[in-house]
Formats: sequence, C-alpha cells, structure tokens
Amino acid sequence: MDETGKTEPANPAPLSPEALDQLHAYWRAANYLSIGQIYLLDNPLLREPLKLEHVKPRLLGHWGTAPGLNLVYAHLNRLIRARDLNVIYITGPGHGAPGIVANTYLEGSYSELYPSVTQDEEGMKALFRQFSFPGGIPSHTAPETPGSIHEGGELGYSLSHAFGAAFDNPDLIVACVVGDGEAETGPAATAWHSNKFLNPVTDGAVLPILHLNGYKIANPTVLARISRDELRKLFQGYGYEPYFVEGEDPLVVHQTMAAVLSRAIDDIQGIQARARSGERTQRPRWPMIVLRTPKGWTCPKEVDGLRLEGTWRSHQVPFAELATKPDHVRLLEQWMKSYRPEELFDEQGRLRPELARLAPEGERRMGANPHANGGLLLQDLRLPDYTRYRLEVPQPGAVSGEATRTLGNFLRDVMACNLERRNFRVMGPDETASNRLGALLEVTDRAWDAERYDDDDHLSPAGRVMEILSEHTCQGWLEGYLLTGRHGFFSCYEAFIHIVDSMFNQHAKWLKVSQEIPWRRPVASLNILLTSHVWRQDHNGFSHQDPGFIDHVVNKKASIVRVYLPPDANSLLYVADQCLRSRNKVNVIVAGKQPSPQWLSMDAAIRHCRAGIGIWEWASNDQGVEPDVVMACAGDVPTLETLAAVRLLNEHEPDLKVRVINVVDLMTLQPREEHPVGLSDKDFDTLFTTDKPIIFAFHGYPWLIHRLAYRRRNHHNLHVRGYKEEGTTTTPFDMAVLNDIDRFHLVMDVVDRVPGLMHRAAYLKQHMRDRLTEHRQYIIRTGQDLPEIRDWRWTSADG
Amino acid sequence: MDETGKTEPANPAPLSPEALDQLHAYWRAANYLSIGQIYLLDNPLLREPLKLEHVKPRLLGHWGTAPGLNLVYAHLNRLIRARDLNVIYITGPGHGAPGIVANTYLEGSYSELYPSVTQDEEGMKALFRQFSFPGGIPSHTAPETPGSIHEGGELGYSLSHAFGAAFDNPDLIVACVVGDGEAETGPAATAWHSNKFLNPVTDGAVLPILHLNGYKIANPTVLARISRDELRKLFQGYGYEPYFVEGEDPLVVHQTMAAVLSRAIDDIQGIQARARSGERTQRPRWPMIVLRTPKGWTCPKEVDGLRLEGTWRSHQVPFAELATKPDHVRLLEQWMKSYRPEELFDEQGRLRPELARLAPEGERRMGANPHANGGLLLQDLRLPDYTRYRLEVPQPGAVSGEATRTLGNFLRDVMACNLERRNFRVMGPDETASNRLGALLEVTDRAWDAERYDDDDHLSPAGRVMEILSEHTCQGWLEGYLLTGRHGFFSCYEAFIHIVDSMFNQHAKWLKVSQEIPWRRPVASLNILLTSHVWRQDHNGFSHQDPGFIDHVVNKKASIVRVYLPPDANSLLYVADQCLRSRNKVNVIVAGKQPSPQWLSMDAAIRHCRAGIGIWEWASNDQGVEPDVVMACAGDVPTLETLAAVRLLNEHEPDLKVRVINVVDLMTLQPREEHPVGLSDKDFDTLFTTDKPIIFAFHGYPWLIHRLAYRRRNHHNLHVRGYKEEGTTTTPFDMAVLNDIDRFHLVMDVVDRVPGLMHRAAYLKQHMRDRLTEHRQYIIRTGQDLPEIRDWRWTSADG
Repeated sequence: MDETGKTEPANPAPLSPEALDQLHAYWRAANYLSIGQIYLLDNPLLREPLKLEHVKPRLLGHWGTAPGLNLVYAHLNRLIRARDLNVIYITGPGHGAPGIVANTYLEGSYSELYPSVTQDEEGMKALFRQFSFPGGIPSHTAPETPGSIHEGGELGYSLSHAFGAAFDNPDLIVACVVGDGEAETGPAATAWHSNKFLNPVTDGAVLPILHLNGYKIANPTVLARISRDELRKLFQGYGYEPYFVEGEDPLVVHQTMAAVLSRAIDDIQGIQARARSGERTQRPRWPMIVLRTPKGWTCPKEVDGLRLEGTWRSHQVPFAELATKPDHVRLLEQWMKSYRPEELFDEQGRLRPELARLAPEGERRMGANPHANGGLLLQDLRLPDYTRYRLEVPQPGAVSGEATRTLGNFLRDVMACNLERRNFRVMGPDETASNRLGALLEVTDRAWDAERYDDDDHLSPAGRVMEILSEHTCQGWLEGYLLTGRHGFFSCYEAFIHIVDSMFNQHAKWLKVSQEIPWRRPVASLNILLTSHVWRQDHNGFSHQDPGFIDHVVNKKASIVRVYLPPDANSLLYVADQCLRSRNKVNVIVAGKQPSPQWLSMDAAIRHCRAGIGIWEWASNDQGVEPDVVMACAGDVPTLETLAAVRLLNEHEPDLKVRVINVVDLMTLQPREEHPVGLSDKDFDTLFTTDKPIIFAFHGYPWLIHRLAYRRRNHHNLHVRGYKEEGTTTTPFDMAVLNDIDRFHLVMDVVDRVPGLMHRAAYLKQHMRDRLTEHRQYIIRTGQDLPEIRDWRWTSADG
Repeated sequence: MDETGKTEPANPAPLSPEALDQLHAYWRAANYLSIGQIYLLDNPLLREPLKLEHVKPRLLGHWGTAPGLNLVYAHLNRLIRARDLNVIYITGPGHGAPGIVANTYLEGSYSELYPSVTQDEEGMKALFRQFSFPGGIPSHTAPETPGSIHEGGELGYSLSHAFGAAFDNPDLIVACVVGDGEAETGPAATAWHSNKFLNPVTDGAVLPILHLNGYKIANPTVLARISRDELRKLFQGYGYEPYFVEGEDPLVVHQTMAAVLSRAIDDIQGIQARARSGERTQRPRWPMIVLRTPKGWTCPKEVDGLRLEGTWRSHQVPFAELATKPDHVRLLEQWMKSYRPEELFDEQGRLRPELARLAPEGERRMGANPHANGGLLLQDLRLPDYTRYRLEVPQPGAVSGEATRTLGNFLRDVMACNLERRNFRVMGPDETASNRLGALLEVTDRAWDAERYDDDDHLSPAGRVMEILSEHTCQGWLEGYLLTGRHGFFSCYEAFIHIVDSMFNQHAKWLKVSQEIPWRRPVASLNILLTSHVWRQDHNGFSHQDPGFIDHVVNKKASIVRVYLPPDANSLLYVADQCLRSRNKVNVIVAGKQPSPQWLSMDAAIRHCRAGIGIWEWASNDQGVEPDVVMACAGDVPTLETLAAVRLLNEHEPDLKVRVINVVDLMTLQPREEHPVGLSDKDFDTLFTTDKPIIFAFHGYPWLIHRLAYRRRNHHNLHVRGYKEEGTTTTPFDMAVLNDIDRFHLVMDVVDRVPGLMHRAAYLKQHMRDRLTEHRQYIIRTGQDLPEIRDWRWTSADG
C-alpha cells in the first residue's frame, strides 16, 4: 500500500462463479435462519402459506447487524477451510445473536451441544421458537452461544477481549467485529491501541473488522459520518493497515470481501513469519477491515412508505404489528422467500450437502473451537509453595512488613514456574511497581511493542506484565485471557477499580450463567487485588479514596463472588494462593502496600484464613469467660487501630474482658443460607456472643457490615466504624481520625456501650479526646503523625 | 497546511527578545513556586542557606507535568491579554496542581479567594506549607483550586468536561491539557470525537493540548512511542488540525509555542467568523496542539547517577530522602536557585511588577474566570407548570400511561422555555427516543455536526439533545455543562449507568467538597433518569438487568445524593420538577417507560411525593385499626405487584387488615440523623408499626432496604423482595416470578408471616403455587403472559 491510500489487493474477484454462487447461498441460508429466529414459531421452511399463528406474539431481537455478521462468518469459513486456519469469532454487536446462532447451527456445532435442536425441519422449528422465548435462549450472544466468549449486550469490550484471547496463542486468529455503535464507546476507542502490546512471535493475531452499517438505535454513527480520508487516517494513526470493503450489491461485496480477507490473512501470516524468523525490527502494521454495508441489508427496502434497509429502522425487528397489519405477514413471507429456502434446505430441512461442506470441520468450526470454551484447555498453574515467601513473625506485631511486596515475591515465582507454559499474565494500569509487585520484573518484562529507548526499564514485546493506563483495557484483556483458558492477576488502585464496575458485572453474569451450562467448562477465576487503598491514599486525597467496590461486588451471585481482607503479609500469601487455584469466581483481595505490623506467623495465618474469621486469642483477655465487649476488625488499617484500642483498654481498664475477632473472608458474615462460606448462626453467636456490644472496625463503608449481618441474633448490638466519605491529603493516622475509626474513637465507642464502665466513662472519654486534640495540633504543626502513633507497636502482655 | 504535514506557522519566532525574556521569567516563577509547594515548609525565597528543617517531612505532589502546565498557562496569559480572550483552563493532569496553584497565586486570584495567602514572603511561605499538608490543600487540582472545574485525580474526563463547558458559551475558549497518560484511558480516547457535536455558531471552542511528556508512573506512554506520522494521522482522523510544539530548550520552545498558539487562536476565530457569518458548510477542522517536552523539564538531569529529567523518575517528587542524604538538600537548593528567584520576586517577596503585568486582569485571569465557578453565572431554569402535563387519573388504576413519555412532554416545554437562554441540554447514549423522551425533538434537534443525509431524523449542529454511544462522554459533557453554570438531564438504561459509576463518584466528591468552600457557588444538580430498567429488560436479557446503581449512589454523602422511585407518571412529573430546581445534588430517578397503570391524580401525587413516603389509604383496609400486615413497595413494577397481591389477599382473606405504603424518596427510610430527608423514628414506627410483619417489594437489590432501615425498631419484621440476580430473555411477569417479587410470591410471604392465617395458610399457598404453575406452562407454550395478568387492573372496592 502506498500513501495515497490504495489498499485494494491485486485480484479484485478471486471467487470463481461457482464458489461465489455457493458462498452466496450459504450466506442466504444464515440470513434466512436469522430472520426465522426473530419472527417464526412454526412453518420454518414456509412450506405452507405464512399465517399469523406461525409468527411469535412478542417480536424480539436485532436484525440490523446480522447480515454483516453472517457475511464475515461465511467468508471466514471459506478461509479456515482453504488454509486450515484456527479462528475464533468475537462479535461486538452481540445483539446480532440470531446470526451467530444461525451459523453455528448450519455448521453443526449447535446441534452437537444442544441435541434437541436437530439439523432438520423439526430442529429448525425448535431453533426458531427458542430464540428470545421463555425457556429458550437470550436475544444476545451469551454463554449459551457456541463459540462465544463475549456477551455483547453491553458494548465496548470486544476488542480488548479479542486481544486477551490472542495473547500466548500463537496459532490463533481472533476475528473481531466491532460495531460502529460500539466504536463510539471509550473502552473500544482505546482498545485499538492494544496492537502495541501484542508480540507477533508468541502471540496470535487479532483481525478487527469495523462494521460500518451506519446507524445505532435512533442515530447515525459517528464513524459512518466522517470522510473516508479521516477514517483511514484514524486507523493508520492507531497503527493499522485499513482495508475497505464497501457496497450494497452482495455479489460485488462477496468478491471484495474474499479478496480483502485473503489479503489480511496474508499480511498476518507474513508479519508472523518475519517476526518468527527473527527478521522483524519494528512494530508491524497489522491489517484491519472496514466493512461498510447497509444496516439491515437485504431486508425490504421500504415498509409503510418509510425507508427500511439502510436506515436505523432496521436496527432491531425491521417491521412488526403483524397482528394488526395483514400486509406485514405477506411482506414477511415475501422477504423470507427472497432467500429461496428451497434451494438451501432439502426435503428434511437439512442444509444441502454442497453447502454444508463449505463449513470447516470438527474443532476448526468457529462454534466448536475449544479456545472459545477455555475451560477445555485450562491447565492448572504450577504454584510454588507459598509458605516459602512468608515473613517470620516471632510474636504478633513484632515485625513490620509490606504485604504486597511479599506477594510480589510469590507472584514472581508463579510467573517463573509458568513461563514455559505461557499461561499466566499480570495486569495493572501502570501500577505494578507502585503496588509493590515489582519483583515480577526480575523474571519477565512489561509487554511493549511500541518504540523503545535504550534506558527503558523492562520493556519488551515478550513481557508478561501488561500495563496500560486504562483499567478497561486491563480488565478486558484479562477477561479474554481467562475465558480462553489461562490464568491471571489484576492489581489496581482501590478507588479506580470502579472504572470497571460495569465490566465486572458482565463478567460475573457470564460466570453465573456459565455455571448452569453443562458444556461450559470452568475457567480460572478473575483475581483482583485492590491495593493503594482508601486508608493509605493520604497523599493523593479525596478523589483516590473509595472502598465501595466491595459493596458493588457483593450484589452479584454468592456462588461467584469472594471478598478477602487479609490483615497482613502471610495471610495475603495464603489468600492469593487460594485464589489462583480457584475456578469460576471473581476474587477481590484488599491489601495495603505500606509497611505495617505483621500479626500472624505462617501457620497462624493458614489456620486463621482457612476459617476465614476467628478470635485472636493473643489479643484477647476473655479467656474462659464471656467477654464484656467484642472488638471485630476487617482490613489491615482497621486491624491495627483495633489492636491499638485494645491496648489502650487493657491499660486503662485491665478488668475489662475484650475479645478480638478478625475477619479475612467477608462473606463469612452472611448467613450460611445466603452464601456458601457464611457462618452458621450457631458459630456466629459463639464468636460474637448473643448479647455483648460489638465494635466493628471495617475497611469499607460501615453499612456493608450491617447489610451482611442484619439477620444475626446480636445484630442490634453491632456498632460499625468504617469509611464515611471523609478525607483529604493528610497524614495516615488523620485519615482514620477523620472517619472515627482510629484507636481513640474506638475506645470511646467501647466506653459508650459497655455499661459496667459508667463511673470511669467520663474520665476515659476525656482522655481520648485529649489525645485527639494533641494529634491534631501536632500534625498541623509538623505535617506528620505523632511519633508514638507512627512507632506504635503491639507488645505481647508479657513482653 | 498540506498533506506533507507541514504545520508550522509563518513566523517561527514571534516573540521579541524582551517579550521572550519576560515570558520566560514568568514561567520560571511558576516553576519555582511549584517546587516550593512540593518541598518547602520555610525559607521560601532561599534567603538563608537551605536546611533540612526548611523541608517538609512528607514529600508529596507531582512535579513531572507542572513545567508543561506552567508553560501553557503563561502563553495563554499572553494571548488573553493581547486579544482580550475569554479562556478557562482545564488540566487533565490534575496532579500538576502545584503549577495551577502557582499561576493563580502569581496572577493574584489565589490571594483574593484565600486572603491569608498573601502576595509576599509570608504568603509564599503559607502557600508552600499548605500544599498537601494537614489542614491545607489537596495534592491535585480540586474544588479548592481557583479556576478549576476538574479534579484530575481520576484520569479520563478533561476533554469531555472541556466540551461541556464550551457548549453554549460562544465567546469562551476552553484550553484543555490532556496528559499522555490520560490519553490512554477509554473515556479520553472517545472524547476526541466531541468535535462532531460542537456548533461553531453558538458554542465556544475547545483547544486540546496533548501534553506528550513521555511517561506515566513507571512506564512510557503509548502516544509518546508511536511515530510522528501516526500521531498526526490519529488526530487528523479524529478530525483535528494538529500543530506540533516540541523541544527541550525553553527559549526555542517559547517561540514555537507562541507562534503555534497564535495560529490556533487564529484558526478558531476564523472558523467561528465564517460559521457565524453563515459561510460555513461543513464541519471545521478545529486546531489541537501536540506539546512534546521532557517529563519534569528543568529539574536536575541526573540524581544519584540515574537520569531524572525526561524520565518517569521525575513524575512525582523527583528526589527525596533529604533527611538521609545531605547532598539532596544542596541539590534542591541549587535546583530552585537555578530559576533565579531574586530576579523574579522583590524584597517583600512579591512578583516584580514588570512580570506581574504579564497576567490578565480581573475576570480575564483564568483563576478568576466566572465560568469556572459556574454558580456565579447560574440562572434558574424557566419551568412550565408541570401539572399541565398530568395524566387524568379519575380512580387509582383506572388508566394506563407511559411515565417517561409524559415526562418527555414536560421536558419538551422546559427545553422550549429556555431555548432563548440556551442553558439546558438533555444527554443520552442514543436512547432519548427509546426512553420515550422523543417529544423533545418537536422543539429541538439532536446535536450533530458530522455528515448529514437528506432523510436524517432531527440532526443539526444546533440541536440540544446530545446523543453519542458513550455514557462516559454524555456524563462528562453534562458535568462540564453544569459546573459552568447551566442545567441538564441525563437519561440512561439502568444497567449501563454503571459505566459511569466512577465518574459519579468523582462528581459527588466534587460537590461535597464544594459545599464546604465559601466562594464556590451552588450549581444545578446532576439529574439522572434511569429507565429501561431491570424489570422491563425482559427482551434484552440478563446483561441488561442491574439495579445496583442506587446501592452505589447511597454510599456518597447524604447531603448530596437523592434517589426517587416515582410509581407513576404524575409522581414522575413532580419529582422531575423538583430535581430541575435543586442545587448541588445528584438526583437519581428510576422510572419505567412501558405502559403501566396510573395510581395517583396530580394532587394525590403532589401530596404523596412531597412526603416522599406514605400510606395509600385507597389500597389499604386497615382504616381505624392496627393492620395485620404492612405491604410496602418502591418502584413501578413492585408497586403493581404489591397492589395485585393486596387484591388477592382482599379476595381470599377479606378480614385481613392490610396497610399499603409506597416509597418515592428512598432516603426517607434512613434515620433522620443519617440523612436530611430521613423519617424520624416516631414517624417510621407510625407508618410501619412496631410489631407487624412488613413485606417490602423493592425495585433493586433487597438488602439495600435493610442497609437503610436496620436501625428501625420493627426491622426484625421486615422481609424484602427485590432483584436477586435472576433473569433472562423472558416475559415481563416472568421476570418478577424469577425473583420471587410477583403477586403470588408476595401473597405467600404474607401467609408465612401473619400468624392469624394458620388454618388457611396451606390452602392459600397451594393456590398461589398453582397460579405460578399455570403461568409457567402458559408462557412456555405461548411466549406471552397470561391475559389475566397482562390485563390485570386495580378496581376500587366499590367499582
């Protein structure tokens, strides 16, 4: 190609008349089946005149994008067969599910997974009926859809999913249709830059196909309404070689598409061959295709005097009101017959053999490609013994350590153990080092295929730490990587994980539905480490302080979500190991990166984390008796403040019996009937008593604890402190003070709630208030926390 | 400019030697003050040798981006003065706050708003000390920062904010620095397309400045590591005319920047003049600037043998450890002295007059521009009498109506009443018509400045309905529009509003802090309508079903957030009117778009909504006595199912006394101490009783009601039904059934909890189970809900 933008390949009409005819017939069959799914309950082959009772009473589904998706499918089939390619197909316009279902039905993969939907007239009837029908299948591509790893209901993530699938699959080509509606979303707009993170030597290829069909629900699309020159420059600017396939006449478009697709595959194979022979020196310009065809292509040009084909009116169900407009029934029949079903399907309703043989075979069929059911390919990670990375903790609180740095050592060796298998990656929006996981760079680099300078720090195309300043892209890559059967770990600033709230929703929903589909095999869990958390964003301030992702997560199905708040490094090691071994979950781990006191030896951490919740006997003085108060905590900073409060109480009220409970697995607080790891009521009552005050210091918003524990017997005695949306750039301890979760407030809370202290209460509270005043005066003067707070250490009662 | 990419303007050195000298001095002053804020507690002018005790003990803040931000500020000042421009400055790299604070201090706007920070040595000391210091100001641009409408802590939104500010401000130029880190985010990557929605006739201009300083926290940036050719094409593809300013020698860069900035302003003024004289026929190519300067520009080249300037190491605090490395104190002193402060500030520590006069005056100063404190400019909306749009409801349940269509009529006239003032816009991600707000198009168009075809539907550059398939962009535009003193309304599919969870967080935080800053004047509320909600996404399926945004919202400060669930059209009218009048809030309204029974006449709706919660006497039969059960509901579908359940109970158990409570304002459920609209405990107990079972049918996740009401006396009798993450493509009523919130399940819940029914319980429950079986069989057969369910109507007891 030269700078004038001439991109058409040499032979503009590579299909023989016979090949063209067959390809076109295959496409007509897919289109026919797409319409049938949207409209028909019965009479699938129109062997009798179409009547209203053959039509669904509720018409649901999207036609507009289906012909384009079907065109791409048919042409990919052709090249898969011709060149024995290994291809999966991601369709951003997931609303076009009728097309994908139709194609997997035509190629036979659908009936293999759903034997009741046979490849004959009865099966076709079942296929039509079940679509968007109670007890049937959803209206979008979904876990139920063979060959899909992408829902497509919420737009924006097809391209990042595609790249995630391509990483470490050197032979795989991921064809990815990006709708021009989807292309307006932010996540899609930046995902194009994923080409700077793809290694042509060891990764597969993504072939993006921008489907410009011009309209969204009610508007034209932006990219369909800029000049061809701007469009070309945009994608050249993104680093691609754009090829254009444009037209309205199917027979012409087939020829162009065949030529362009061949050329694109040539480009991909050329790039890979050069890179793999060691020839390549700079980032390749990967091909992409701009496919401009009419919205709702091949539907009636006009209905009721309004243009239909090529307008937004054909976006969903092109025309309805069949009950009230008998004309519309005839129109539907004419439209469906325009595909000449009798030429496509035989007497039994089977696709004619000369067409059926156009589909690839076995696992080469895109609906049967094992990469799209990643659990089939999943191998366990090789995991080093996590206890090897432990911090030695001779006494609780005796040493200080950085939890995530310790984790980084473990992750480094997880990475090292699996380098050969190439099935583990770590994602982070430019925060891996900041989050103290930098040890990973001892064994791998950061993935980077853009320009490099001599003094760059651990950048290489082969890197397995993926960093781009886009939480969306990190999350999308990881989802694609996991759903194709690999493992990963995502670390993120706690406040900014909300950027992917919605992506988390969709992934959790995908997993929930997948669990109910027998042929979907379990995949590795999505592991999210939230660090640089709310309590230690004292330097960044209010915008960086938000612990609400946990609240968001626990709204999803109990079978899917887990939330862990390990209080120190050794407990983080245990939790991380568990998460990396788990399947079909979203595991959220909250752990700080700053130096903090360490509480548990490795053995103690294992015991504690295995239970998920427990009494810390060494910090309690209620041995053998009922406590006067329960001090509970979850999260590293709340644990520290709780223990400091306990020591203050020991000092001032040595007779007060305090029980300390630490919660690692937040879901233990829920009743067992609500969550599989929930404590039984009996166990809960044993821990928290049935009538003593509970002062609970929690990492997140305090009401979350109430939401989890409101059914517990002693709930009315539960008093929770947590983040209450107060913060700014200030000292670490002041952050706790601003939210009343510091040691002094906790002591005051105890005083307020333990009746036996009455005569001492006023004195103790005044003392705590004095300490808070002293704190405030000191930080205003010096900008630092009081030395006795900074340097506070838990010492065992006898030490 | 021609295709070869030559973009340099004619005079490459427009600054006279004297002008250059002064501009450079001004820039040095801003740089000096930026460093001082990061490092110094005392000795601000270095009049005595720098010692460790002059340095802050905790070094916080970002230097890396500050010199670039300062350069742009100084050059904008120059052109504002020279051409009397009206400019506000948005800095995506909000971490560069030291630079913005320095410049507003230099121009005097800072001291006007914060009189204790005087323009002399004492004031400079205060300025330095307060930065990132307890009791001082945050480390990022924030509401505290004069001239800012943008936090900049969470990256991605500068450009959409900038366009939002420019809409309907024809004389305003919004200079917007986009960091090259931020440029990797999705929201930023698509916000570039905002130029297709800007009307050069009646909107102002945005001048984007991509600041390529090459590095993020620990990585290079993508856009700094692609070729100049790709970079140019990318922005040409986005529709801009890119100008490049690149260099390391400040004196050279000053000349280029001066020339390019003049040229860009020429372009803007030329485009506007042509458009406003009626000449223009096609979308203009607005200018943008690529500013490539070294990260941490002018800091030491190397520290401790490692390169500093021009690398990621200068991103935050360039070098620290001053307490342990005495060299570093000397290094800091040398570095600061390299700006020659004695030439910049006089004996009193004031900026020398020949430099001070380089700043614009009065409201032309970017720190004092009233557009950046939008409440100053805010005019009340002209609101038509909302009761004119009421549906006539002669009896509860007597008529059917579409709530959002009714709202659409009201919004149409709100739009019409304010067309002249041009201070109201409606945003939606391609969903305005789908959400039944299409009446708006009777009085305005959809904003669209890309290509138009003859048969396009209501597209024009002057349109005031803003639709792009990017929730991020819609939200960002609206935030920018509101913060500059205008009004707006955002309608969105309920499930996909989670896409902007994080943006909502940041806006709510901005409002919370703004309330505490005396000079920040109240702005119009952010009004979000969630429609196409969870219960009527039966056609789209599981991916479109998520009512969790409310959960997310209520984590923010009670003084900011409001959540309304109007049960019908008239109550929606009342609520919308209230929201449009409110200030400094985020109002979330959940309302369906499907035809539904109408319950309240306009008068009844006003009374009910004014209280926010109340007994529906007409649906209750507990007049004069204590009820046996309270049936509460919030949301349109739960209200319908509750009323249908009440009728079933009336029919089968006529003696059972049922009280029906409907909740419009969700925050009434919280205790008054927690939320300003919360009910007192006494009022709550009067409504909900202290000992009777409460069956609560809720729109969202059920536990949210527990989280709000757990402190209430009768909480242990509260049983909540809501969405429990079950759904697929099925019928509307089946969606309720899948989540146990349908009328039959609600009756069974009553049976389970009212002790007096014991002898009838088994019969009634079996009857309900039979009805559910019948339902299931019918939908599987027909795809539709039973006619008696579809057509169910509430009839008054005597009707």
